Amino acid sequence: MKNSFGDSVCYTLFGESHGEAIGIVIDGLAPGINVDAKEIEKFLSLRRPVDANSTARREPDNFSILSGVYNGKTTGTPISIVINNTQTKSKDYAALDGIARPGHADYTAFCKYHGFEDRRGGGHFSGRITAPIVAAGAICLNALKNKGIEIGTHISSISNVKDREFDNFSEDIKILEEMNFPVLSQTAKEKMQQEIANAKNNCDSVGGVLETVVTGMPSGVGEPWFDSVESKLSHALFSVPAIKGVSFGCGFDFATMSGSQANDEFYTENGSVYTKTNNNGGINGGITNGMPIVFSCAVKPTPSISKKQNTVNFEKNENCEIEINGRHDPCVVHRAAIVVKCITALTLCDLLATRFGTDYLA
Amino acid sequence: MKNSFGDSVCYTLFGESHGEAIGIVIDGLAPGINVDAKEIEKFLSLRRPVDANSTARREPDNFSILSGVYNGKTTGTPISIVINNTQTKSKDYAALDGIARPGHADYTAFCKYHGFEDRRGGGHFSGRITAPIVAAGAICLNALKNKGIEIGTHISSISNVKDREFDNFSEDIKILEEMNFPVLSQTAKEKMQQEIANAKNNCDSVGGVLETVVTGMPSGVGEPWFDSVESKLSHALFSVPAIKGVSFGCGFDFATMSGSQANDEFYTENGSVYTKTNNNGGINGGITNGMPIVFSCAVKPTPSISKKQNTVNFEKNENCEIEINGRHDPCVVHRAAIVVKCITALTLCDLLATRFGTDYLA
Amino acid sequence: MKNSFGDSVCYTLFGESHGEAIGIVIDGLAPGINVDAKEIEKFLSLRRPVDANSTARREPDNFSILSGVYNGKTTGTPISIVINNTQTKSKDYAALDGIARPGHADYTAFCKYHGFEDRRGGGHFSGRITAPIVAAGAICLNALKNKGIEIGTHISSISNVKDREFDNFSEDIKILEEMNFPVLSQTAKEKMQQEIANAKNNCDSVGGVLETVVTGMPSGVGEPWFDSVESKLSHALFSVPAIKGVSFGCGFDFATMSGSQANDEFYTENGSVYTKTNNNGGINGGITNGMPIVFSCAVKPTPSISKKQNTVNFEKNENCEIEINGRHDPCVVHRAAIVVKCITALTLCDLLATRFGTDYLA
Amino acid sequence: MKNSFGDSVCYTLFGESHGEAIGIVIDGLAPGINVDAKEIEKFLSLRRPVDANSTARREPDNFSILSGVYNGKTTGTPISIVINNTQTKSKDYAALDGIARPGHADYTAFCKYHGFEDRRGGGHFSGRITAPIVAAGAICLNALKNKGIEIGTHISSISNVKDREFDNFSEDIKILEEMNFPVLSQTAKEKMQQEIANAKNNCDSVGGVLETVVTGMPSGVGEPWFDSVESKLSHALFSVPAIKGVSFGCGFDFATMSGSQANDEFYTENGSVYTKTNNNGGINGGITNGMPIVFSCAVKPTPSISKKQNTVNFEKNENCEIEINGRHDPCVVHRAAIVVKCITALTLCDLLATRFGTDYLA
Repeated sequence: MKNSFGDSVCYTLFGESHGEAIGIVIDGLAPGINVDAKEIEKFLSLRRPVDANSTARREPDNFSILSGVYNGKTTGTPISIVINNTQTKSKDYAALDGIARPGHADYTAFCKYHGFEDRRGGGHFSGRITAPIVAAGAICLNALKNKGIEIGTHISSISNVKDREFDNFSEDIKILEEMNFPVLSQTAKEKMQQEIANAKNNCDSVGGVLETVVTGMPSGVGEPWFDSVESKLSHALFSVPAIKGVSFGCGFDFATMSGSQANDEFYTENGSVYTKTNNNGGINGGITNGMPIVFSCAVKPTPSISKKQNTVNFEKNENCEIEINGRHDPCVVHRAAIVVKCITALTLCDLLATRFGTDYLA
Repeated sequence: MKNSFGDSVCYTLFGESHGEAIGIVIDGLAPGINVDAKEIEKFLSLRRPVDANSTARREPDNFSILSGVYNGKTTGTPISIVINNTQTKSKDYAALDGIARPGHADYTAFCKYHGFEDRRGGGHFSGRITAPIVAAGAICLNALKNKGIEIGTHISSISNVKDREFDNFSEDIKILEEMNFPVLSQTAKEKMQQEIANAKNNCDSVGGVLETVVTGMPSGVGEPWFDSVESKLSHALFSVPAIKGVSFGCGFDFATMSGSQANDEFYTENGSVYTKTNNNGGINGGITNGMPIVFSCAVKPTPSISKKQNTVNFEKNENCEIEINGRHDPCVVHRAAIVVKCITALTLCDLLATRFGTDYLA
Repeated sequence: MKNSFGDSVCYTLFGESHGEAIGIVIDGLAPGINVDAKEIEKFLSLRRPVDANSTARREPDNFSILSGVYNGKTTGTPISIVINNTQTKSKDYAALDGIARPGHADYTAFCKYHGFEDRRGGGHFSGRITAPIVAAGAICLNALKNKGIEIGTHISSISNVKDREFDNFSEDIKILEEMNFPVLSQTAKEKMQQEIANAKNNCDSVGGVLETVVTGMPSGVGEPWFDSVESKLSHALFSVPAIKGVSFGCGFDFATMSGSQANDEFYTENGSVYTKTNNNGGINGGITNGMPIVFSCAVKPTPSISKKQNTVNFEKNENCEIEINGRHDPCVVHRAAIVVKCITALTLCDLLATRFGTDYLA
Repeated sequence: MKNSFGDSVCYTLFGESHGEAIGIVIDGLAPGINVDAKEIEKFLSLRRPVDANSTARREPDNFSILSGVYNGKTTGTPISIVINNTQTKSKDYAALDGIARPGHADYTAFCKYHGFEDRRGGGHFSGRITAPIVAAGAICLNALKNKGIEIGTHISSISNVKDREFDNFSEDIKILEEMNFPVLSQTAKEKMQQEIANAKNNCDSVGGVLETVVTGMPSGVGEPWFDSVESKLSHALFSVPAIKGVSFGCGFDFATMSGSQANDEFYTENGSVYTKTNNNGGINGGITNGMPIVFSCAVKPTPSISKKQNTVNFEKNENCEIEINGRHDPCVVHRAAIVVKCITALTLCDLLATRFGTDYLA
């Protein structure tokens, strides 16, 4: 399916960083869902670079909804959202043409598209392509909220600085909602931003981990074997080039736990079933158990750094050096937070529509 | 697609642990690939329990190929492989009916299938359902080998015991090939098996990490955004209930690295492009770069433990206790190794057929 | 998807005429649907050759349900049905090896599978491969009946002999239900059978048209543009090699009608909306309107005829002659009726599950 | 997949007649294909109303290519084409709100979208939504031409007036190429246009049949069972609401033919295999045999007629009358010709990419 994702609700992504526009088509979303342009604008603003430590490209992200919304509500037919590219400074990149930026997709895109790819600004592989996902996420999150489903993503770590853990999911999700650097602890936030500033000063960059929690998901959702909740979420998340690890519940910590530590004991209270712990992140056998879904994503350090690096010119097939002086972020973890949150929303809308039919989210 | 996975080559899984049979249909594999029953048998034997520390269920895994193979070669039409269930001791499980085993899918299956699910032996969620994947993997690995593509999976850790790292990929893959407890260091192996024995003695279980390497993959394979190599592999891998984390290259270690440490510098030699390091695990922007694909899977400790646990009877909606006395493994990490290797083979066959057409693997 | 069909309920077909077995996997069907082995047996018997004018191959169609059914009901997990091949007289076909039977898939299969295809008895292209579809249809029709949805298929013509038109849908569907030569008019039936006998005597064969009606479908089902009811049904129907035309409502007769003749006027009565005529066959804009779905399939004359024909030996790339003396039917229209009925059932189950969720048919 | 079609090359359609814009995303098309804006403009002009007998809505169809094309060639990433809606006279339709136009999708859309659908001008079900398919077709036909594959569609009949049959495929395809009323016989054309004029004078409309031929297709293309060439083409064609019948080769005429008449005898000449006749329309067992693909589509008479008709107001659930006075065509057969031709091109690109890989059409 390449640039489409989802079965019952399907998302199709298009665009290049310096092309005419980027966008997304959302197909299969129930009719009657409120679409709030201000909400979309707010979401897009959370993805945009925010401070002195971020890329100098400041795009207003003016979007148009071309179809699928009428009188402020979804019609049930495909929603097409387009964001025009305006701040394209292609000449920053012209000098690099044919030179593979280490850690980027320049060389692999060349292998796949044989030189016909639009390389300007990373082309189809630019982080900018996540903006339409965020616009779609604003609509999907709205639909989920009406069903009592909430999603929160925080930066659980940047370098070795860790945020505090989730305490009260509901309150913490609310706290994170409007933050463009979503961290639960103010102290951690300051230390993280210091790490980013240091990296910038060193012509370098830093990575981190994002943790996401979903509350309010009904039990019994997920389509194993192959469309387990973990399968669908990881499939969507790993489409973001910067994400190199995804884990659910205790994730890689399970490796050093015993079964008696790892198992979540069930109990019933007032007719509902819960687990005492939530080490499995709300998912057993690929199906939701009604507890919060919890997962983490490893975000690699931005590959664009201004330090001099060795690499190749793949057009000439010769070794060379590179210094990347264009606009770029020393850290994309905080900007990736809203992307991860939105990808989660998109995926859950798909899973819920499969389970309960095309009208469920209306 | 639920129990089907793959676009150009599609795998459909069926069966319950104590039903008549389990099996798989492989559709879209090129015609003319050798199918060697002994190879399939060998693969299946690598998934079977092997020693005193494994489950007492010793199934011979007698399989039949019902279609799609003629004169020892694939015909290009769907290959159906069926493995009969013979050693089904359902009464071991009868006492547990309606009682949710912690960490298992009993309760979530009930939420999804409303009590119509076949619960005997974990039903459709039993680890046994991975056997047909392994049978299919034997065929797919054979096809990949003809193209110079090799896959090796080793136990990189059980509890806190670590295997040595890959040294010479080609030689190490060969070493691992016939091992049913695939570890590179003999010392590590012994320590790991001691950990498992200890867990068994404690009525408990242990988890671990599997690391996989793929050599010989051509560059330019992968269909971003959404069918990136990471997306497809993780989608397939997370269908195994015991796998709770998947990471590529440095994975979660990227979080504490700087960009200058993380980036893989390119160089060209004799007309080919390589990277000096392989932190990105052979994938940039979701597309292979020609370097080995490297990824890790976190395997949680077996949820079946004989320690007494609190849980619920979801039929009666009441709290209760459980002691699991049936046949089960104190560790499934080593048995999962061949499953991960085979899922990798299945996924790569699909990606290659998408890229190069239905005849490529012939 | 090749040998799989359907999105929310997915059917995967496998097998060759003279291989070990043929079968189908049904994935996504709701849990709790009754599965009646006798009903499946009855359906399979309706597909089998019935009289002196049919093929001499008399297969008992002994089937096994390997998975997905427990205590006589669907579990919600994949249902695998296997029918063993027993009456395989491969030597009848051996003489023809490499010789393209006109109107058959021998030559095109060779083009696609490069000689690795199993040619015995038409291999994967044999009409016999429709048997598993019929077995699946028995389950699906049962599920639909519980929702008040009934399907009837009759032979509307063989050569120039026409059956009477549907009169009372409900009664006519009941009449057709148990017939293995489903015709509404007894006179027409006799004339049709005479046509078939004549063809046989002439070492020749005849074709015909099948008309299908579906009653009780709720309105609002169908997923335009591309998954219109017509798109999904025709996709599935055209997988049968003998079907060369599919039309809905007035079909090709629309070409000579005026808009005022063709349009179905709406009216409302007791709170429900109906149309006075049903020229559009119950579908407007690809979505059901609550009126009966009506469509026709053109079935070509059996290509296996004993008359001498010119053709090629594609292995030797030389011209030659052929006389087909194996077992074959001078007409497959009546046997195709149950196949068309079942394909319709499969497709509607898929469309309904998409619309109303995976539990709808339970 | 709803508004997406195709596996290896996937097309996603969006838009409403009177919304902001309509468009299509083409994903998976090979890199390096020439994209000629003038060719797209020419194709779009062939779909536009052309004379006094057509709708008065004269849209310039100004399109933008937002992504996937760089330096005049496809990049291999998704191509997004958007056509703005400008000539939207919504008030023509306002009076009809809630009134079901007979033969249209107003009522069924209401059943599916519960009143949230954008009804203006037929909304998502307007014939106008075929324009983006035509724009995409211009690119796909160009790609096919480079492989020697040509497509021609002519009006084989309107009412009872028949065009002459194809004589020399190659020359006839060339003749048809630039015609916006594609008929092979000038006499037939005049009579057909007279039929349309008569219908208009009678406040009525007429239907017809379109016949399409494809030359140059390689043999061995098609993915049976379920992705037979007939299955894929009919699936795509039946997405057009006006198409109510699709048949291949002799189609419904097979019903009255004998096997000896219907079978296409093979012969070999200069190392290639051909058939003497082409009754099967170039397809055996769902796979191309190298002969021209030939199929017909029944197009129903335009449901928009100015004659008074009985119908319902589904908002008020009451019977009423309707006179449709907006802009509409008394015949859409000629405008549908380019749509059918383009849908064919889209489908063949998908089938070829599946068979030969993503680079084949480059």
